[in-house]
Amino acid sequence: MQKAGPALRILGIDPGLRSTGFGLIEKSGSTLAYVASGCIRTESADSLPQRIKTLLDGIGEVVATYRPQQAAIEIVFVNVNPQSTLLLGQARGAAISALVTANLPVAEYTALQVKQAVVGHGKAAKEQVQQMVMRLLKLSGAPGADAADALACAIAHAHGGQGLGALATAGRRVRGGRLL
Amino acid sequence: MQKAGPALRILGIDPGLRSTGFGLIEKSGSTLAYVASGCIRTESADSLPQRIKTLLDGIGEVVATYRPQQAAIEIVFVNVNPQSTLLLGQARGAAISALVTANLPVAEYTALQVKQAVVGHGKAAKEQVQQMVMRLLKLSGAPGADAADALACAIAHAHGGQGLGALATAGRRVRGGRLL
Repeated sequence: MQKAGPALRILGIDPGLRSTGFGLIEKSGSTLAYVASGCIRTESADSLPQRIKTLLDGIGEVVATYRPQQAAIEIVFVNVNPQSTLLLGQARGAAISALVTANLPVAEYTALQVKQAVVGHGKAAKEQVQQMVMRLLKLSGAPGADAADALACAIAHAHGGQGLGALATAGRRVRGGRLL
Repeated sequence: MQKAGPALRILGIDPGLRSTGFGLIEKSGSTLAYVASGCIRTESADSLPQRIKTLLDGIGEVVATYRPQQAAIEIVFVNVNPQSTLLLGQARGAAISALVTANLPVAEYTALQVKQAVVGHGKAAKEQVQQMVMRLLKLSGAPGADAADALACAIAHAHGGQGLGALATAGRRVRGGRLL
């Protein structure tokens, strides 16, 4: 990429115990570019400490390979099943641990903020988010669901954590330094 | 300590976001000895990633200082408040992350298992657990609540994860390799 100004590489994370999605984008001036995405899966037969180790090693490898400068992670919802909430919490705690251990600044975004940033409103369906991620990053194919959510979170962070829709509604001017 | 055979140093952890208790004991032959205990507190005004960093750094420092060979952590309960469950899960995920990052084998015990190992039955009150921790480790004063729970978890692990009461009931023979 030959752009004026240094590019900012952002790692987005969609945490989960069974599968944690990751997505890397690069923001150069007002351009967003896709770098990589995928997901880290753990074996349900493994013990929780082993599954957490798999997540840590996976995120560590992603960070070592793609060297992002900033990280963004979705704020997860409490589940109807308290046991699932506990497992999801532990996976998210592990993901944040991997990011702060790598000395990355970690920003947190709600699903609402991510949808507002990517689609323009907070009530977008999952498929709309995926379509907009593809369009914004000029992808020829749809990434997996977890990877798409992680990329959407990275895009929200590139947008300075402000929903485009929210900004338009509020009539605020987008500052170059904060917004893509 | 001048005992036959190498001593095994165990780190017990009682995870929590506000305060994570730790307790180190040493098992030499059939003797348990107190090494250290305390708790790592996080600032509620800090962001979650910052609080997780505080927990990671704190546990990392405990491991670097006392060099345990094995770790044991309590299995936490789901809370009536789902948001609290989520926060507790994230703290526990961070604690396990710190332990596996330090290459410690991590064993998990329920509160029931810990009580059985320390008091002899699973319905013991918190004060009974504290009293037994003091007696088993020959402490002159009561450790803090979080530290006592962490020490109790380490004792449960030293007992091979088998409740003494449960073993007596089942009439199983205790193998030297697994039990204290």
